Amino acid sequence: MAYHLLQRDRAGALHLAKSLELATSHILHCEQCNNFSEYEICELCASEQRDDSMLCVVEMPADLLMMEQTQCYRGKYYVLMGRLSPLDGIGAKELHLERLQKRVQEHPCEVILATNFTVEGDATAHYLATLLQAQGIRVSRIARGLPVGGELEQVDAGTLAQAVMERREMAI
Amino acid sequence: MAYHLLQRDRAGALHLAKSLELATSHILHCEQCNNFSEYEICELCASEQRDDSMLCVVEMPADLLMMEQTQCYRGKYYVLMGRLSPLDGIGAKELHLERLQKRVQEHPCEVILATNFTVEGDATAHYLATLLQAQGIRVSRIARGLPVGGELEQVDAGTLAQAVMERREMAI
Repeated sequence: MAYHLLQRDRAGALHLAKSLELATSHILHCEQCNNFSEYEICELCASEQRDDSMLCVVEMPADLLMMEQTQCYRGKYYVLMGRLSPLDGIGAKELHLERLQKRVQEHPCEVILATNFTVEGDATAHYLATLLQAQGIRVSRIARGLPVGGELEQVDAGTLAQAVMERREMAI
Repeated sequence: MAYHLLQRDRAGALHLAKSLELATSHILHCEQCNNFSEYEICELCASEQRDDSMLCVVEMPADLLMMEQTQCYRGKYYVLMGRLSPLDGIGAKELHLERLQKRVQEHPCEVILATNFTVEGDATAHYLATLLQAQGIRVSRIARGLPVGGELEQVDAGTLAQAVMERREMAI
């Protein structure tokens, strides 16, 4: 990219430099959801269309976008900007969880943990659940199981075992 | 395969013919679980190691093998040998559900519906749930959601939406 800009598009390079400078100085973390935002409170947190009684905790801004694409969730979000990962030196302190704790203390709500189902994501979910339940918050976790359209023959044994363990009563 | 047997392995062809003849005349449906079996009651149904209080309903014998591979389920099975599929002319009659109804009447137990999460599999699960709940049977369905090791960024919107809707309270 550097060669292309220098050889063919020096004006573009200056434009990119200015945009990066602007972004670096103007983009903050939203005070409520910790996501990137140009304002102190981001548009999503400021919106009155969103349900204040649910708070979905995700790892990264990209996960928030995925959740928004489902169009089935109308609550608010909290973006961790990472996950617990002791091997990478990321512990509870580095995630600044006090912001999340303050958020649920000020606006008590159901917290939906939507961290990934990886080892780190699961560990983060368990840590958060312990932390928030001690504050008297109702905490739930998104479901684990077979994907929509999935056939038993095509899933791995671990997922099928989880799906059986986490089976739910049929409501007709 | 036909050319190979005729040209190079006529003894093998005869052996295959006899095996097929034997299988056709000797392999029945197990009276309890409807799976293929050489005996009236198959080994799995006759086993005293299996938990009689759970009955897992699957579509095909291959699904039963998948469930066994998870090594997390120690109950019994019922194999539908198909699924409701009106377009293919397979209705409730063709599945011989009276055998399943008799089975749960004689040995009341929790029924776990492990049909696929396809349109036909889901329709079959709903039909069975209505049928069995009317008999006073406790019916559950295997979980739908994110696969083990799954990340939010990698799943389709439908599965993520289901995972949020079917979220469960965290128990610490």
